[in-house]
Amino acid sequence: MTSEYLQTVELDKAKKIVEELFTNFYTTKIEKINIERAHGRVLAENVYSPIDLPPFDRATRDGFAVKASDTFGANEENPVKLKCIENIEAGYIPKNTITEGHCARISTGALIPSGSDAVVMVEFTEKKNNDILIYKSVYPGQYIAKKGSDIKKGELLLKKNTILSPDKIGALSAVGIKEIPVYSKPKIAVISTGNELIELSENLKKGKIFDVNSYSIAASIEECGAKAINLGIVKDNYEDIKNMILKGLKVADIVVISGGTSAGKGDIVAEVIDDMGEVILHGIAMKPGKPTIIGKINSKIIIGLPGYPVSALIVFRVLIAPILCKITKAFKLKEKIVRLPISQRFHSTRGRLEFALVSIENNKAVPILKDSGAIASLAMSDGYIEIPKNVEIIEKNEKVEVKIF
Amino acid sequence: MTSEYLQTVELDKAKKIVEELFTNFYTTKIEKINIERAHGRVLAENVYSPIDLPPFDRATRDGFAVKASDTFGANEENPVKLKCIENIEAGYIPKNTITEGHCARISTGALIPSGSDAVVMVEFTEKKNNDILIYKSVYPGQYIAKKGSDIKKGELLLKKNTILSPDKIGALSAVGIKEIPVYSKPKIAVISTGNELIELSENLKKGKIFDVNSYSIAASIEECGAKAINLGIVKDNYEDIKNMILKGLKVADIVVISGGTSAGKGDIVAEVIDDMGEVILHGIAMKPGKPTIIGKINSKIIIGLPGYPVSALIVFRVLIAPILCKITKAFKLKEKIVRLPISQRFHSTRGRLEFALVSIENNKAVPILKDSGAIASLAMSDGYIEIPKNVEIIEKNEKVEVKIF
Repeated sequence: MTSEYLQTVELDKAKKIVEELFTNFYTTKIEKINIERAHGRVLAENVYSPIDLPPFDRATRDGFAVKASDTFGANEENPVKLKCIENIEAGYIPKNTITEGHCARISTGALIPSGSDAVVMVEFTEKKNNDILIYKSVYPGQYIAKKGSDIKKGELLLKKNTILSPDKIGALSAVGIKEIPVYSKPKIAVISTGNELIELSENLKKGKIFDVNSYSIAASIEECGAKAINLGIVKDNYEDIKNMILKGLKVADIVVISGGTSAGKGDIVAEVIDDMGEVILHGIAMKPGKPTIIGKINSKIIIGLPGYPVSALIVFRVLIAPILCKITKAFKLKEKIVRLPISQRFHSTRGRLEFALVSIENNKAVPILKDSGAIASLAMSDGYIEIPKNVEIIEKNEKVEVKIF
Repeated sequence: MTSEYLQTVELDKAKKIVEELFTNFYTTKIEKINIERAHGRVLAENVYSPIDLPPFDRATRDGFAVKASDTFGANEENPVKLKCIENIEAGYIPKNTITEGHCARISTGALIPSGSDAVVMVEFTEKKNNDILIYKSVYPGQYIAKKGSDIKKGELLLKKNTILSPDKIGALSAVGIKEIPVYSKPKIAVISTGNELIELSENLKKGKIFDVNSYSIAASIEECGAKAINLGIVKDNYEDIKNMILKGLKVADIVVISGGTSAGKGDIVAEVIDDMGEVILHGIAMKPGKPTIIGKINSKIIIGLPGYPVSALIVFRVLIAPILCKITKAFKLKEKIVRLPISQRFHSTRGRLEFALVSIENNKAVPILKDSGAIASLAMSDGYIEIPKNVEIIEKNEKVEVKIF
């Protein structure tokens, strides 16, 4: 392997390669999680109701459980007189059977006593001495939710691939399902390479800088609904990088390694991947982001990002995030786009698709004119614009599409 | 207190009351969290950079660190010959000073050695025996990122209230900040009342049903970026409800209690709140959702939701979620709206603002014609429509706005 890039490919082709790779080499797994942590996850199996719902004939109004036939003909002028034999609150089991001429006080949600086939709303009744006057006729079944009328035992409650919004969480709890089968989040190991990098907990020594990519890329991964496993920093040498990639392959489905900024670095990663598996793509015709590597090792995917934080973030966002969000299903990539005039003339690189960070000020897109090594641009940016390959100059006040971070 | 509702108020007025209550009685708190968990949270303080960035004069290209004056006049025809005295990789401290006629091999990101004031890109150099031929003039400062040129120590890096997207996480890590001051999530205690309710882990006994609201409301709370504390089920009596509310007030900023379905239940909650503090609102002119209670106890907010799961969820979504999302800042309420023709003639209640669940089928809004006690409607629904007070009938194929769950 030479220190030259393999043939660079256009971004669109790279996207296709990544999509195919993820489709073929990422297998969704299933896990059971507690319903209290299931919000926003994706159901991995059809769920059938294990019970009838309601689980019993249930009053849907407060009133009196009666035999409907006892009420026929009752009206405001000619009430029917019934003897109340019980008060049935929700949650309790009636002790008596309702026979002709009798009724029971019943609460919404309470079990309908045997013998009764309707409920008269309390508004159409009157207590008189020990009797209840019924001022309205009811038909059999009125104000009763029959056992299983809502959902029958064995009936399909929720389809596989349903996103578990609060209402769906409600449906699952209603049938008593506490452990929910959902797709596991793809596990992605994150590695930063660079002899100059130190952890945030270390003291800054001369010549060293804090690692950025572990944190920004991990956050991007979480944003897509996947699980980031931050393996931290590795030195710029073949053996260390190889061992760290092996570690990543062991704990994760996908490994993302961002290059240091030292010379020839991208090549070590490519060399290691080539020796361990296959480099599928090395070099994309985009700025920033040219030294991107896509490879596979056995059945796992490995992605090499540029070392500069802005470059790494842009490549992840443009190339990886859309397919990652697709496989996690729950997360739509936040693709908020606003069209704004650009605040100043902007020069782009001839013949290369370019991505530039912008901030939004006074309803204009203000290009951040720092190179991709600059961190202030991350602090200042609100999003980025994409400048096509064949565009060299964007004139002041021309409208651009800003994709919001 | 009677068993009648206090005067019901219109939803818009109720929204205003809730908004005022939250604004006056919810105080944002600040906590420090590890950067690895900071994604999506909201910065609670201005953050100033504790270091210069870059922390040292840094090469921005691979090449040779030189004295610029040594290169003046160098070109393709007349290269300048320099003696290379060192190889400086990123992360290492140069041992020597560059003096006239000398240079050092340098990697991108490496510390510029003393005496040098520019970098010549490797592409414009050639190694010849022990010398380096320089084919291009550089000016002082070329390809050097000066210490502090990106961000100066003490400079404002990120403003208070910034949402911590991956790029902002990157900016914080670049200056070595590991513990991030963010707004604490509002803590909301969730209580379900009802003698008929059982936990998901219990066996279903006759007359009992599984608790739904604890789970669906907790998920709605999480959806708004707040923290739900599920206190579970409480029996329908004054003392138990009072004690559970006290417990909720102790652990949370806000207490949400959903009523059971037994008779007069809403009244016990209102009575308890009235005795412990103040009932501000009891009864909203909406369907479902009429028996909603808004109150405060000392400086804490308490919300009483109807017991029926659909009702509780709709009230939470319409009345509470918008202001809750506003105070957590990070979370915009997912207000995805689609305009679709309705699949059939739909009758609404005269004189009451109504919310109805719908599913989306064949690009039509299909009303789910089950009462708000039915759980199947939660499983089937894709969202809901709002029918204004003065509308009694929506004709088939009339367009409606569906708010997606």
